[in-house]
Amino acid sequence: MAEKNNVIYLDNAASTQPFPEVVECMNEINEFIYGNSSSVHFKGIEAHRIIKDSTDVLADFLNCSPEEVIFTSGGSESNNTAVKGLGFAVMGRGGNMVTSAFEHPTVLNAVKSMGDFGFEIRICGLNEEGCVCSDDLIGKIDSNTRLVSIMAVNSETGAKADLGEMSDSVKGKNNKTVFHTDAVQAFGKYKLDMNELKNIDMLSASSHKIKGPKGVGLLYIRKGLNIKPLLDGGGHQGGRRSGTENTAGIAGFAAAAGIYKKNQIEFMKKARELNEYLRQKLLDNTYDIRINSPREGSPYILNAAFRGIMSETLLNHLSGLNICVSAGSACSSKKKSDSHVLSAMKVPGDYIGGAVRISFEPYSQKEDLDTLVKEIKAVLPILRRFGKR
Amino acid sequence: MAEKNNVIYLDNAASTQPFPEVVECMNEINEFIYGNSSSVHFKGIEAHRIIKDSTDVLADFLNCSPEEVIFTSGGSESNNTAVKGLGFAVMGRGGNMVTSAFEHPTVLNAVKSMGDFGFEIRICGLNEEGCVCSDDLIGKIDSNTRLVSIMAVNSETGAKADLGEMSDSVKGKNNKTVFHTDAVQAFGKYKLDMNELKNIDMLSASSHKIKGPKGVGLLYIRKGLNIKPLLDGGGHQGGRRSGTENTAGIAGFAAAAGIYKKNQIEFMKKARELNEYLRQKLLDNTYDIRINSPREGSPYILNAAFRGIMSETLLNHLSGLNICVSAGSACSSKKKSDSHVLSAMKVPGDYIGGAVRISFEPYSQKEDLDTLVKEIKAVLPILRRFGKR
Repeated sequence: MAEKNNVIYLDNAASTQPFPEVVECMNEINEFIYGNSSSVHFKGIEAHRIIKDSTDVLADFLNCSPEEVIFTSGGSESNNTAVKGLGFAVMGRGGNMVTSAFEHPTVLNAVKSMGDFGFEIRICGLNEEGCVCSDDLIGKIDSNTRLVSIMAVNSETGAKADLGEMSDSVKGKNNKTVFHTDAVQAFGKYKLDMNELKNIDMLSASSHKIKGPKGVGLLYIRKGLNIKPLLDGGGHQGGRRSGTENTAGIAGFAAAAGIYKKNQIEFMKKARELNEYLRQKLLDNTYDIRINSPREGSPYILNAAFRGIMSETLLNHLSGLNICVSAGSACSSKKKSDSHVLSAMKVPGDYIGGAVRISFEPYSQKEDLDTLVKEIKAVLPILRRFGKR
Repeated sequence: MAEKNNVIYLDNAASTQPFPEVVECMNEINEFIYGNSSSVHFKGIEAHRIIKDSTDVLADFLNCSPEEVIFTSGGSESNNTAVKGLGFAVMGRGGNMVTSAFEHPTVLNAVKSMGDFGFEIRICGLNEEGCVCSDDLIGKIDSNTRLVSIMAVNSETGAKADLGEMSDSVKGKNNKTVFHTDAVQAFGKYKLDMNELKNIDMLSASSHKIKGPKGVGLLYIRKGLNIKPLLDGGGHQGGRRSGTENTAGIAGFAAAAGIYKKNQIEFMKKARELNEYLRQKLLDNTYDIRINSPREGSPYILNAAFRGIMSETLLNHLSGLNICVSAGSACSSKKKSDSHVLSAMKVPGDYIGGAVRISFEPYSQKEDLDTLVKEIKAVLPILRRFGKR
């Protein structure tokens, strides 16, 4: 099962290769620390200690209290828990929930599902930069707004929300509104200080986007906020999320987060260099191209659309050359419809079908970007001739 | 992080040590197969293939179609998804849900939580063997019963439900009632053929109870049954459970299940020998003891209560000698109240506080049971002198 040679993997917003330290740590825990962290004997206690130490690492990264962090099976569970858990806690009193066309389907569909439970759903539009229109957002908040959920960094374009300002404005309009952010593409990469971001009540993060294992995520829940658990049961994690803790996964997540924390500035600098380099190189070497990622967005993601092609055809061609990039987010990559994010940004029709997302990790290589651009440049005329939608 | 020497681990109903094959398989996947299984490039396809192959192994074990299996983060999520997913799907039409005092808290509390959504909750009692009273169960079913959830093997005593007969009787009374079973302690150990068990509509299983990794489980959902997803989102797993699939965890689960399938009869024989051996040895060497596990229950679990002691004290003493056993299920082991299962079985008051669960895996050793009994025998008189409740 050895790695194929010369893989150029540029789909890190979908998933990343775990750090060697993460793999090693998980391997040891899977082998030796097999107790159930709820057990009171020493095999339980040693597992519990690992969970506790991991919680401390992650809480420290968010500058919050360990009691404010619960572990989940990933960003999808965190988002669903935030939206539905809050909804079920305030259900019966009615009200509305506000989110945006900017969101990942896990938030968008979780919010929409709350329509069945008596909530009115309000969806904000995006501006041409792909950011949530602040005026539209604030206009949708009223005295009955129970929840606002806005993504920190968009998974398709990298467009970044100003969470501090946005959450302050929301609370300024209704200080009882709960503010949640899906920070799956921001956590680890950006400083997220929950002591400074005082108006953010819940935050979702995922491990496998920062070179940790799949199957683990966290939900930050500000002290004092009560939500209903999505998973009821034996009372794990303070009764907020039942289920035997995934010791190896949680420790792997903390190990990855620890490396990101230590290298956050350097990693960001590297991502900026890669992004700038690729952006310029694409503009210099291809034509009829539209960069959909704002310059001030997350440098870890670059979304570029080529006029008159179908992105699937380009992706398949590149995949055949051992180059991995994507069209939009992975979870929607098997669907044939246009991206809801790019549609909301009003990307022109002859470009929207040819959008490609290239996403970095701190160890991505410039030479790989050279190869990528060379291959795109070579195949574009062919795709444009034969590949009309 | 090496294993402490001479550990006697007899808490396998709480969690098991993964098979070496499982650890190795996960290690390789964590290192090399890091693509997102929803991605369309070759790194996505190789992950998708592993998920597909793993699904086939598990579906084959259950003799069902791969489309009838969804992966979850474990038994707790499976149970909550079954109960709430069905509840949310039929909500608004009212009705009742029936379960028993026999259940794991993830089912019991999930069912109870549905009281907030307009369902009437009915809980069956247990007989002295710790099994659900069939007459009581059937008496509680009426034309408005939406769901019945009965555990296959009780996690505290090993008492076993006759699922075939029970589900047939339930459907005989109301063929529209959905029958779910929490088979976390049965899956892998017993033959569970969904083609034969035609009246079981949903079944929960967990990986880490059969020497697979933590953080993974499955929910069998019979074809044609529609439940609402607990995790909405990007449409993974046929839209029934969103979230990037945990490739390594799922493959580890399938690897463990494959080993159990191959050795099911031999493993069961071994567990029976261990159970009979320990049962007799305890009866021969200690006094004022009550075996709470019925002989016809799962041999993987033996629950024994010693009059006039507190089980926590015995567990702590044994833990100091590197012997791991538990009092009831792990998830409730940090609570001080008496077991709800033993209470429902009417275990006498001077025994109930001194109940200990000893649980095996196929590689448990008889010599370890000798050591366990020797240590219990030695300490019992002391605990009885000082440890009155």
